[in-house]
Amino acid sequence: MQAPFTTLSEFRDILGKAPQADATATDAAQDRNGQLTKPPGALGRLEDLAIWYAGWRGNPKPQIDAPQVIIFAGNHGVCAQGVSAFPSEVTAQMVANFEHGGAAINQLSKAFGASMQVHALSLDTPTADFTQGPAMTEAEVVTALQIGWMAVDPVSDLLVTGEMGIGNTTSAAALAAAVFGGAAVDWVGRGTGVDDAGLTRKAGVVTQALALYKMDDPLEALRCVGGRELAAMAGAIAAARHHRIPVILDGFICCAAAGVLAQTSEGALDHAVAGHQSAEGGHARLLAALGKEPLLNLGLRLGEGSGAALAIGVLKGAIACHSGMVTFAEAGVSGG
Amino acid sequence: MQAPFTTLSEFRDILGKAPQADATATDAAQDRNGQLTKPPGALGRLEDLAIWYAGWRGNPKPQIDAPQVIIFAGNHGVCAQGVSAFPSEVTAQMVANFEHGGAAINQLSKAFGASMQVHALSLDTPTADFTQGPAMTEAEVVTALQIGWMAVDPVSDLLVTGEMGIGNTTSAAALAAAVFGGAAVDWVGRGTGVDDAGLTRKAGVVTQALALYKMDDPLEALRCVGGRELAAMAGAIAAARHHRIPVILDGFICCAAAGVLAQTSEGALDHAVAGHQSAEGGHARLLAALGKEPLLNLGLRLGEGSGAALAIGVLKGAIACHSGMVTFAEAGVSGG
Repeated sequence: MQAPFTTLSEFRDILGKAPQADATATDAAQDRNGQLTKPPGALGRLEDLAIWYAGWRGNPKPQIDAPQVIIFAGNHGVCAQGVSAFPSEVTAQMVANFEHGGAAINQLSKAFGASMQVHALSLDTPTADFTQGPAMTEAEVVTALQIGWMAVDPVSDLLVTGEMGIGNTTSAAALAAAVFGGAAVDWVGRGTGVDDAGLTRKAGVVTQALALYKMDDPLEALRCVGGRELAAMAGAIAAARHHRIPVILDGFICCAAAGVLAQTSEGALDHAVAGHQSAEGGHARLLAALGKEPLLNLGLRLGEGSGAALAIGVLKGAIACHSGMVTFAEAGVSGG
Repeated sequence: MQAPFTTLSEFRDILGKAPQADATATDAAQDRNGQLTKPPGALGRLEDLAIWYAGWRGNPKPQIDAPQVIIFAGNHGVCAQGVSAFPSEVTAQMVANFEHGGAAINQLSKAFGASMQVHALSLDTPTADFTQGPAMTEAEVVTALQIGWMAVDPVSDLLVTGEMGIGNTTSAAALAAAVFGGAAVDWVGRGTGVDDAGLTRKAGVVTQALALYKMDDPLEALRCVGGRELAAMAGAIAAARHHRIPVILDGFICCAAAGVLAQTSEGALDHAVAGHQSAEGGHARLLAALGKEPLLNLGLRLGEGSGAALAIGVLKGAIACHSGMVTFAEAGVSGG
């Protein structure tokens, strides 16, 4: 099996032909929701989530049996500019930690019954320092998109994409600024915990990048200031759409990658919900730009897909209610 | 086994002698949290939750293996005043639905691995219409507190109390107003879905009650305007404290019952977190009065313990991370 694209242009074409939710299943799920033993609307957003999920799965009474969490890791040449509180070696060290089961995302994946895979993308060859030249060649960004696309198991019924990459909040901030507009300071944050001087350096780096490249095209922006793990997440989210697998978006970096899809093709994220609002500076703004209301807001700012993985529980609860509850008629309860 | 009180006065004494969290376990959990493979604070509220839970369980590396959901059901004489959109018969019908596994709380309990029991409290004998006289005698309220107390399994490691009782948002609004002050309109909401006229009737009923009784003592307020299921929830939450079982509070009615404990004895809810913020009118105000920040805010307004049960997933995720992650030293990751 190979990814169905070999250029950015072909990838763009695929986004334009993305499938839609099944309207018949959506309507049937809506009908079912109205008959369940609860006052109308009493399950709040759980009802909307269940109907949305049913539509994408083409099943008015769906189950979540096979959630998949995929972590992509990449290294960033821009770390040379002193934008992170941690050294680049930590990326590979954390990949080993993921592989040995010791990180937060391992525990969350297990807790919510998700399979989890890690893809380390050329960690020994960081992207170019984008203050000096484009982060990636077209071949490099396409390869990362393909790896992301192929990482999605077509039999999964829910996808979370996470990332690890020292320096990648700077890359994500530059990408968000390029794709959604605004100034560098609107998008940079403290990442893993830089001090005020580090934050100022991050803003300077993003400002430089915005002046350096012509980034009218979101996919070109991904190439110029993105990273391999960001491109891979975008590829995976696009593949999920192709397979009608609903997606829970994670934090700032995941949403910056997803934003490339949304700005390339309208509705490209209709199969995705926002798992949480991160404490990372620009995430609230990014969620607003994507038009997504987060399911959780618990101050997480870890990445790794952790916030989205936690939200698997919320979605599982929503689907359990929708598909497991009986109707007023079945229960013999008055007033339905 | 019997509950360790036979009067309201004895129950009050027990609240005054409630055990505290284990400071040694709290400190050890705090230490452990600082060594886990993540930037400091990057798991946000999950870190606070894990440390809090560890303290109450007296174990710096705890597990959640036996969550218990208990639903108490009661009927309310005040329904004679036209305060609900549903007839009182629905209480018993929904109890049957709980027993047959068809309600939302059944699905959520199953989804999060919780045992679930239902206690129907004298449904054929509603409390007195509190616009005419006190809802309960002292014997009745003590019996309900005892039933709640005894319903808690001492080997549980997490408790959710839920309720079902047509008319009980009116009872809870009167109780909240009596216990926390404010006007009737501050506390009444649409419950299962009353119209504007119904909402006005609810406010009128609460105003009448506030004028009718001297309710300086929260336990006396529980007797005068509460209900059996509210008293039972209060008894269960107190028993959980006695056994050092952490509690996730549910919505408006659960929090009104819990507020009786908090106003009777300072710190009586230190072993409890707020599972969610309900869409029911007065719940945000009630959470503020309790000083509790909700874990979820998804527009639920169903009762049954549903919002708190959904939050079991969040707490399980927090504990999974805390107890399952490795330390920087164990993983060989730089920068810890």
